[in-house]
Amino acid sequence: MSVTAAQGFTAAGIAAGIKEGGKPDLALVVNQGPRLAAAGVFTSNRVKAAPVLWSQQVIKDGQVSAVVLNSGGANACTGPLGFQDTHATAEKAAEMLGHSAGDIAVASTGLIGIRLPMDRLLPGIEKACAELSAHSGEKAAIAITTTDSVHKTAVVRGEGFTVGGMAKGAGMLAPGLATMLAVLTTDADVDAATLDTVLRRATAVTFDRVDSDGCMSTNDTVLLLASGASGTVPDTGAFAAAVQEVCQDLCRQLIGDAEGASKDIRIEVTGAASEADAVEVGRSIARNNLLKCALHGEDPNWGRVLSAIGTTSAVFDPDRLNVAINGVWVCRNGSVGEDRSLVDMRYREVRITADLSAGEESAVIWTNDLTADYVHENSAYSS
Amino acid sequence: MSVTAAQGFTAAGIAAGIKEGGKPDLALVVNQGPRLAAAGVFTSNRVKAAPVLWSQQVIKDGQVSAVVLNSGGANACTGPLGFQDTHATAEKAAEMLGHSAGDIAVASTGLIGIRLPMDRLLPGIEKACAELSAHSGEKAAIAITTTDSVHKTAVVRGEGFTVGGMAKGAGMLAPGLATMLAVLTTDADVDAATLDTVLRRATAVTFDRVDSDGCMSTNDTVLLLASGASGTVPDTGAFAAAVQEVCQDLCRQLIGDAEGASKDIRIEVTGAASEADAVEVGRSIARNNLLKCALHGEDPNWGRVLSAIGTTSAVFDPDRLNVAINGVWVCRNGSVGEDRSLVDMRYREVRITADLSAGEESAVIWTNDLTADYVHENSAYSS
Repeated sequence: MSVTAAQGFTAAGIAAGIKEGGKPDLALVVNQGPRLAAAGVFTSNRVKAAPVLWSQQVIKDGQVSAVVLNSGGANACTGPLGFQDTHATAEKAAEMLGHSAGDIAVASTGLIGIRLPMDRLLPGIEKACAELSAHSGEKAAIAITTTDSVHKTAVVRGEGFTVGGMAKGAGMLAPGLATMLAVLTTDADVDAATLDTVLRRATAVTFDRVDSDGCMSTNDTVLLLASGASGTVPDTGAFAAAVQEVCQDLCRQLIGDAEGASKDIRIEVTGAASEADAVEVGRSIARNNLLKCALHGEDPNWGRVLSAIGTTSAVFDPDRLNVAINGVWVCRNGSVGEDRSLVDMRYREVRITADLSAGEESAVIWTNDLTADYVHENSAYSS
Repeated sequence: MSVTAAQGFTAAGIAAGIKEGGKPDLALVVNQGPRLAAAGVFTSNRVKAAPVLWSQQVIKDGQVSAVVLNSGGANACTGPLGFQDTHATAEKAAEMLGHSAGDIAVASTGLIGIRLPMDRLLPGIEKACAELSAHSGEKAAIAITTTDSVHKTAVVRGEGFTVGGMAKGAGMLAPGLATMLAVLTTDADVDAATLDTVLRRATAVTFDRVDSDGCMSTNDTVLLLASGASGTVPDTGAFAAAVQEVCQDLCRQLIGDAEGASKDIRIEVTGAASEADAVEVGRSIARNNLLKCALHGEDPNWGRVLSAIGTTSAVFDPDRLNVAINGVWVCRNGSVGEDRSLVDMRYREVRITADLSAGEESAVIWTNDLTADYVHENSAYSS
């Protein structure tokens, strides 16, 4: 049900001809109200695509009436003309929907450095508007995929309200940002300021802790739109939990579909002096190419975990580090622990626990292994 | 000629049985004086191998009479017993050579988390001492290799003095440290304080700017030993230039032999507001897995260069970034530049220039592409 699971939203997903081969490549999500509240988080990459620069302006007043998303081109590094293309996209949707262009967010994904084919995209918006429906959430989710092997949707039902969402992403999943394109919708009656607080906290512990390949995109966008159509003013804690659950569900799907990956790796850093330390250590482990290769080879190479921890500024004593892989404490007190041959590495999910023995804080970072398929996919596909 | 090119040094390289298959795995370098001056730089990884902890103490008084190096085991993450093994190694060499153990540096490379076979290593030191010769520099260089496909040596002749060296390294080449094992020797008559200054500056712009796979080792060590045997007190500038040239020569060999690589990538960052900015941007580009895959596929994907620049804190305006690949300015002013099909990517060396348009400073960072062979080598080989 995706973005149309919540009341008050319609969506469409169509083939505008932006991608070769007639695949769906244009999605539209429209908030029918009565509220048009919205919040967004965007890539922290300083090289931002035109639609990110545009949508950051749109979101400032906390009001978004519709989102236009396209795959088949990122509209990044396209200069002033690229920004004009995004503006024209919003203007076209505004004209068709009878809205203000200043309330239309835009998101794009695909190749960097190429202008979008506006002669196809603008007619595509007309077509998408004609196909808007409260049952087309899945179609919208399909239309935003790029190298994804499956589309990603999630729905959580709260007491009297629903939160739904869609996401795309299969590479360039890194922290410090929203991490990919995602649109979440809710029929809860929530103001924009609350949406902003809830979305920032949810993404900080979900999308921001996924690090598939350490690469940060120019286009990452997560939007949360509230229609208020359920009439329910939810308990903020319950609402925040539902939003976080949808984000977490989508994240797990992103990791499970990362380019070329054969292992989904859950890194839990415990015993940290601060949450920031735990996150820094988790990211360092997640970005260690040698470890990612070893795990691909089903080698529980804890030396590479210690080596990665050692590059951080976190509080720890090297002689008090403990590491478990799939529940076996292969490293104790910075040295050899239990027999590494006891580690069962046959399954897709690998769990690493790194205990810093320096405090009570913890964090979980997700990553993938590094495979020959990842290399093939990213050396053959110009993305 | 390696470490025995300079007068006043003998060396040996033998098979002690540390590695399987009878390959050379133990090297010894002895300074015959009259000077025993030395300087060293070590990994900045906070998880340091026992020989690094030992040699950092040895180097403190600026005097080193011999270096024992072994491949086949890193003696890292081996706890107090591992440190005792390093101590015993130095004691054994001291006993054989009639030196003080406190003047014997030790360096190890190989698998982390495994104790060294001291029952083979100690007799190996006896054997190495018996084979010491002023003509065995190459043998020593061969004995320290691990996954290297060739051993690495370099020699530079100055006016009345010589600087020679050997290095090993084929993976885990990352900046912020010495980057691998290297021993440089000179017969110039130079004191330890000068050696320290010269070595730190040389490694900062050579070994420290090689970033093959972003992974930082627990064992990296670069030592510079001076015998004074030439009797020449060199001009400090000329001496520093010679040391830097040997370091640069060894670095280029390390990059040319990086695990699984098919491209050697020279990243020059120009127009930076500071040298630190140039280095930060160069490292970020060097560590971008997506770019490294694209270059492997001979795709001049400048969008990934911009995306990597965008993650740094360097001074720049996204709309004033320029990028050239092999001399073709494929990106101008943050947007599409010359036709990317003009870029000839057939050769092993790839040159990227990233112009930040923010100042006059520059830096060069070397890296490699990311290949399926790298994945295979590091998923099959427990290292």
